[in-house]
Amino acid sequence: MAMNNNNFTNGSSGGSGKAKIGGIFTPNLVPLDSRGEINEGEFRRYIDWLIDNGVHGLYPNGSTGEFTRFTVEERRRIVAICCDQAAGRVPILAGAAEANIKETLAACEAYAQYGARAVAIVSPFYYKLSPESVYSYFKEIALNSPIDVTLYNIPMFASPIDVPTIRRLAEFSRVIGIKDSSGDMGFMLRMMAAVQPIRPDFSFLTGWEAVLVPMLVMGVDGGTNATSGIVPELTRRLYDMTRAGQIEEARVLQMRMLELFDTMLYSADFPEGFRTAVELRGFNMGQSRQPLSPSQQVDRAGLQRVLHCILADFNCVETPPESCPIRTGNIQEDRVSQITQAVLYKLREQGVV
Amino acid sequence: MAMNNNNFTNGSSGGSGKAKIGGIFTPNLVPLDSRGEINEGEFRRYIDWLIDNGVHGLYPNGSTGEFTRFTVEERRRIVAICCDQAAGRVPILAGAAEANIKETLAACEAYAQYGARAVAIVSPFYYKLSPESVYSYFKEIALNSPIDVTLYNIPMFASPIDVPTIRRLAEFSRVIGIKDSSGDMGFMLRMMAAVQPIRPDFSFLTGWEAVLVPMLVMGVDGGTNATSGIVPELTRRLYDMTRAGQIEEARVLQMRMLELFDTMLYSADFPEGFRTAVELRGFNMGQSRQPLSPSQQVDRAGLQRVLHCILADFNCVETPPESCPIRTGNIQEDRVSQITQAVLYKLREQGVV
Amino acid sequence: MAMNNNNFTNGSSGGSGKAKIGGIFTPNLVPLDSRGEINEGEFRRYIDWLIDNGVHGLYPNGSTGEFTRFTVEERRRIVAICCDQAAGRVPILAGAAEANIKETLAACEAYAQYGARAVAIVSPFYYKLSPESVYSYFKEIALNSPIDVTLYNIPMFASPIDVPTIRRLAEFSRVIGIKDSSGDMGFMLRMMAAVQPIRPDFSFLTGWEAVLVPMLVMGVDGGTNATSGIVPELTRRLYDMTRAGQIEEARVLQMRMLELFDTMLYSADFPEGFRTAVELRGFNMGQSRQPLSPSQQVDRAGLQRVLHCILADFNCVETPPESCPIRTGNIQEDRVSQITQAVLYKLREQGVV
Amino acid sequence: MAMNNNNFTNGSSGGSGKAKIGGIFTPNLVPLDSRGEINEGEFRRYIDWLIDNGVHGLYPNGSTGEFTRFTVEERRRIVAICCDQAAGRVPILAGAAEANIKETLAACEAYAQYGARAVAIVSPFYYKLSPESVYSYFKEIALNSPIDVTLYNIPMFASPIDVPTIRRLAEFSRVIGIKDSSGDMGFMLRMMAAVQPIRPDFSFLTGWEAVLVPMLVMGVDGGTNATSGIVPELTRRLYDMTRAGQIEEARVLQMRMLELFDTMLYSADFPEGFRTAVELRGFNMGQSRQPLSPSQQVDRAGLQRVLHCILADFNCVETPPESCPIRTGNIQEDRVSQITQAVLYKLREQGVV
Repeated sequence: MAMNNNNFTNGSSGGSGKAKIGGIFTPNLVPLDSRGEINEGEFRRYIDWLIDNGVHGLYPNGSTGEFTRFTVEERRRIVAICCDQAAGRVPILAGAAEANIKETLAACEAYAQYGARAVAIVSPFYYKLSPESVYSYFKEIALNSPIDVTLYNIPMFASPIDVPTIRRLAEFSRVIGIKDSSGDMGFMLRMMAAVQPIRPDFSFLTGWEAVLVPMLVMGVDGGTNATSGIVPELTRRLYDMTRAGQIEEARVLQMRMLELFDTMLYSADFPEGFRTAVELRGFNMGQSRQPLSPSQQVDRAGLQRVLHCILADFNCVETPPESCPIRTGNIQEDRVSQITQAVLYKLREQGVV
Repeated sequence: MAMNNNNFTNGSSGGSGKAKIGGIFTPNLVPLDSRGEINEGEFRRYIDWLIDNGVHGLYPNGSTGEFTRFTVEERRRIVAICCDQAAGRVPILAGAAEANIKETLAACEAYAQYGARAVAIVSPFYYKLSPESVYSYFKEIALNSPIDVTLYNIPMFASPIDVPTIRRLAEFSRVIGIKDSSGDMGFMLRMMAAVQPIRPDFSFLTGWEAVLVPMLVMGVDGGTNATSGIVPELTRRLYDMTRAGQIEEARVLQMRMLELFDTMLYSADFPEGFRTAVELRGFNMGQSRQPLSPSQQVDRAGLQRVLHCILADFNCVETPPESCPIRTGNIQEDRVSQITQAVLYKLREQGVV
Repeated sequence: MAMNNNNFTNGSSGGSGKAKIGGIFTPNLVPLDSRGEINEGEFRRYIDWLIDNGVHGLYPNGSTGEFTRFTVEERRRIVAICCDQAAGRVPILAGAAEANIKETLAACEAYAQYGARAVAIVSPFYYKLSPESVYSYFKEIALNSPIDVTLYNIPMFASPIDVPTIRRLAEFSRVIGIKDSSGDMGFMLRMMAAVQPIRPDFSFLTGWEAVLVPMLVMGVDGGTNATSGIVPELTRRLYDMTRAGQIEEARVLQMRMLELFDTMLYSADFPEGFRTAVELRGFNMGQSRQPLSPSQQVDRAGLQRVLHCILADFNCVETPPESCPIRTGNIQEDRVSQITQAVLYKLREQGVV
Repeated sequence: MAMNNNNFTNGSSGGSGKAKIGGIFTPNLVPLDSRGEINEGEFRRYIDWLIDNGVHGLYPNGSTGEFTRFTVEERRRIVAICCDQAAGRVPILAGAAEANIKETLAACEAYAQYGARAVAIVSPFYYKLSPESVYSYFKEIALNSPIDVTLYNIPMFASPIDVPTIRRLAEFSRVIGIKDSSGDMGFMLRMMAAVQPIRPDFSFLTGWEAVLVPMLVMGVDGGTNATSGIVPELTRRLYDMTRAGQIEEARVLQMRMLELFDTMLYSADFPEGFRTAVELRGFNMGQSRQPLSPSQQVDRAGLQRVLHCILADFNCVETPPESCPIRTGNIQEDRVSQITQAVLYKLREQGVV
């Protein structure tokens, strides 16, 4: 089933002489065992499955991968496992943000040795920094990193990286691209307009799968989309169809996949909805390090039933034994019906109705 | 030069049996005379110019048209002039929001008599209403309006209209479309996914020109874009190229037009940047009803010089007598250079440097 | 019961030589009749009741008074009725914001003739204006108004007025104070620190009753609090106790009144919760001009039962015939219990459970 | 100069039988040496100075202390130094947030052994969690911590802890208080109203010094105010005057201290303004781990001159050799004049003017 054909390397050569980063990079979820430790066996099996299903690269230690909930040592181990298991089949874009620049550079050093293609570094978080501080932070890293650096803009969680700052940082050859999870199409166009004249090799990746097709149409090089960790074959198909100019087919699939994405994103605290979904593909994720209350566990079970039906519609999994609610084809209506069903189930379970 | 060919009427028939609204609808700016009153002669000349330059329709009393700064009587007169001057050459989408439902319905009645194609009604503003209240408001209008209604979602200024509410309102045949000025591509896709299954004739218009091309690619029917009031020939070309499948050419023009849009939008309080720009096309807009301070007047003069250079680049106007700063093709850099020049000019004028 | 003793006039004389505005100014709700028109008789009766219960002034055409939902003529009539009915017993602070400066100045002219003490003018809304534009707007009014002007800052609904702008506007003697509904104590202190050195006569009023006591302790002159339209005797007591230095008693009452305020504010779209509550004091408010959906009407009925119990606790009204849920004294718990009861009632009414 | 008299222990006994936490707890800045490592000698000297100047407690590993920029081992060392140096003179409230619950509990264990009075744990950050998840997180900690826990709410940086969640968490005896840095007075009153009926021993600390006086007046037990790390004698005086009922004097000092606070907070990315200020008290803070660009270094020098003048006004430091700009007593005007001066200085230095 090895449909991976390395066509992500179709870009011009980067500042480091390496191929431009593009295609679908999966932000890896990390399976945990019953003691809450990294489940290495399951993780390796999951990596193989992703590669076999066509993703162009792996992206460990991203937001989806809950990098903030692991220790420094665990983050190293996660990248090491990814690099080892991928074994050159696909490139690794390794999340390398640590407590401060010195620690971050040490991680860059380690990931370079592990064989990662590049690191992705989220803008400083917790504190909301000014553009000048964001610039200073990345500049220091760009000047000292032994490995190519991808900026990571995720304004809902970290200090935003604005267009002039990206433009200034693009002057460093070590900075080879940006992964943007704002979902803001206008912002992406502004970035491209500002950077491409001086850096035609700069890579633009969108982290917002709700708009993957229009982003690709407007010129981005690929995506780091959590959904590709659940339905890698579909995200890959979306990418391939768009690249092939089958816009209408891509548009239809994009709109259909919105329901899946929205359900995973908005039905639980991120990224629990994605962890819930990937279990339906046959992987044991274990309990999250962010504990669930009893009522959240009930919600999660309800959500998993909903996701089961959605994934069955895509023929990604078998239809569940208990039948799914009849689907009207209208997302809102179907979701309301599904959620109502789940809530009633929960109330019944608790003896309320 | 009459390049208008009514190809906006390519939709299926609406609930009212009329053609689907589509194409580029220009949100009209309103010229004022030296006493601050509506300058009817200039307004009529402006309307003719817009139609001659290819816009598919006119949209008076929108946010660009500063509807909140006119009196009830003036808003009526603005629509009356539009309808009269257009004289059937292009359809009129008339902004009809008034203080309350009764007054709004009276405006709908008037605009129907004037011959408007439909009204656009902004979601209740000032108070931030819940979705249920937004629904109740539009439902009452939908049930009683003598003319087709377009919802107007502009969350930066008014109560947002969310996807489930749009879906519920689409059940009224009087509601024939939505003009969305959120600029949020994912939101637009969600709306389309929710509404199209029950209302294939429903019209989706984007009010955010920074993303006009990708929105059209993803299936919207047109746009109500303030930029089309300044460079109607370019907005129309953008629309035509996209419709013709010339995506790459459209993409390039879209990214080039971003600079013009951003400069008009972010260099002054909306919509003064657009008023400043249209004067370069030969129309006398007069002083805005929102007064400018002396320093704002200096800023406006500087902005107009910048806009003059941008419009000259598009060959829309002659190059100004004093030469424009050399342009690098990089928007950020050019803007910084232009703004620096304008600020220095201002400081010099004030004797600071 | 005439406990009104004009002690609001204890300030130094303003720019116009009149007394400083202070004390509790009630933002008037407007009763409507069965046709949706202003119910003048009920309105006059309500005004008398407020004055009899000790409020220091009236504030028609505020946000609570739904000024945006009335026509120009109706706003005039509302102020005229207030001035006429108060007949000098308390001063009138009249909301005078209209579509533009010319219309606003015409309203100022009218309200001066009606005998209002001053006007309150909300910062420009709908458009979000820059500080410089907000300044230009108020400057023009300050230079031309025939009546004293109070600035009205309500950042959740209108363009914010920042501290430097307030300071600049305080240089106009016509501007005699500010009504701030931000609820931000730090902001209020910053305003006072900036303005008092140049204008010791400037009046500071808070529109946020959740913090009325600490605001008074820190030096504000009074409040324009919607709650005073429901329980004028309590708001007045809060004011008097604080002024008398009975801080501990005031603190206890303030915290108890929080429940009432929060319930009115957060249980329905503003100001419907306040309209719902005032009916319990014996006034017929009629249906709002913002229509309620059937489910909102059910919610409103449930809310009124909750408010009935809260007001009964304050001995402002009789206990309802059906008993109130036992109150634990803990606001959150009590509200949850009340809302649960109301929701169950509603579900039962709809046959769901 | 030992004015510390332990009067923070005036509360009723907590769940653990220990004294209620109250008074001024200083969130410690951490001095770094020329290699960027913790400067232990300077840190110990700073701790002594704070205690000698009257703070009631120390609060290491807070936001002011840049806890996210240190490694796990460094955070331990910071608390160890604090506990050792304080040597029982004042209690230590130790920030204990780590990557996940297991690591956080290990930190709690360590800090208990070091002799800390309690730990403060910031709500989960980076991800924006729902109230239910915030509850689950703290519940797990409350059930397993060997040391008393203070919740830390700082909604501008971390997931907010809402009133119902605080109420639920107050049911655990291990949770003995909350440090709230929202600065929202209404929110604080709501918390107190919800929690005090079930936990009269619960401690409320405000982290927002702009409103310290009114917060104390309304019943909070103390503050964790970064300003107390710069001018401990003034913050202590503010506290003492308010406790002694000298509200008017406290009010005047509060408003005067606003300028200092605002200048430190808004003139640089937090907490660099505070680091800049403390150097004027004779401590060598070293370069921050968040690097400064050359222009930021110029800004910092300008800011330090401004702060020097402000601190001289308070007689906390000597007047600088070059005289300070004449102060009008109006904060805005003075700051504008100071900043103008600093900007001109910078432009001159760069040869622009």
